[in-house]
Amino acid sequence: MEEIEQVLDFVIEIEKLKDVHRKTKPIGLDRYENSAEHSWHVCLCALMLKDYANEKINIDRVIKMLLIHDLGEIDAGDTIIYKSEIPEVKEKEVAGVERILGLLPVEKQEEYKALWYEFEAGETPDSKYAKAIDRIPPLLHNLHGEGHSWNTHNISKEKVFSINSRIKEGSESIWASIESKLHEAVSKGILK
Amino acid sequence: MEEIEQVLDFVIEIEKLKDVHRKTKPIGLDRYENSAEHSWHVCLCALMLKDYANEKINIDRVIKMLLIHDLGEIDAGDTIIYKSEIPEVKEKEVAGVERILGLLPVEKQEEYKALWYEFEAGETPDSKYAKAIDRIPPLLHNLHGEGHSWNTHNISKEKVFSINSRIKEGSESIWASIESKLHEAVSKGILK
Repeated sequence: MEEIEQVLDFVIEIEKLKDVHRKTKPIGLDRYENSAEHSWHVCLCALMLKDYANEKINIDRVIKMLLIHDLGEIDAGDTIIYKSEIPEVKEKEVAGVERILGLLPVEKQEEYKALWYEFEAGETPDSKYAKAIDRIPPLLHNLHGEGHSWNTHNISKEKVFSINSRIKEGSESIWASIESKLHEAVSKGILK
Repeated sequence: MEEIEQVLDFVIEIEKLKDVHRKTKPIGLDRYENSAEHSWHVCLCALMLKDYANEKINIDRVIKMLLIHDLGEIDAGDTIIYKSEIPEVKEKEVAGVERILGLLPVEKQEEYKALWYEFEAGETPDSKYAKAIDRIPPLLHNLHGEGHSWNTHNISKEKVFSINSRIKEGSESIWASIESKLHEAVSKGILK
């Protein structure tokens, strides 16, 4: 019974992710996306594209990674992927993950902290695929939204291609599809 | 390659769930919740409470169910659980699920439509647990938010207890915890 209460406190705390705003707007909406709805979106994206991972992956672990991957943003906020990593922000995010997952019963804390660090490191097949998928929806937002976030943050096409080409570490074929869409965006003039 | 494009079209279509508004506000926020962020929230809630299901469940199937459980609302909108089911709205939701999951490659369509109908029927251990969890966050929103949705929609305590007691079909112990919180809400006067 006490453990249920502890988990319910965690469930309440993570509501705050619904108030962390990201840098792109969902297609067709005139507001920024929040990290909670983004987390749902990447889970379904990962699930439906799982057959295109480069290596053999465990999709159930990937989904769990993606469900928790942004929890640290509750304390650290969201950072645009095109900015170099600021050590203070990364430290805040790690401390946030430790604090928030630390609300769970002990064995669960350990299990999900390990999964989060695996995602962060991005070295296993599961985390390489999860990280690749994490980049897809914001690219679609820009591609179908006049490159709004690229323009607002002055992101050059060189940067967009170089940062996102890391998608191919998780999936060569998904990157091939995205890469051709980015070339189209360049020719349309929405990616400069 | 064509299949990837097909899945990406699905990924874009389901963005619309971020614009389906529910009847409760997340704790601490002065806006209504949307069904996409709700879907993320119930997945983590289900994952962290899985040991309290009455029967043996497959949590990976439960999470997949919860990721897709509200997709039909893109066409039908969200309905409060305390209203009797309106056949026209249910029909719209079913048609919506068929349309949206119908955007996927054929084998995936079949797999996820079957999973959605299983959730809807609520007769298997996985779907009974998933349905129980689906009720937890809106109850927490009311319990920690002055019963805002109960009051706005004139929901009596009798109705709240009777409708939500179905949680015990998925988990007796989670219902015990929630039931005691509801009694507390009655004694505080926020549930009348």
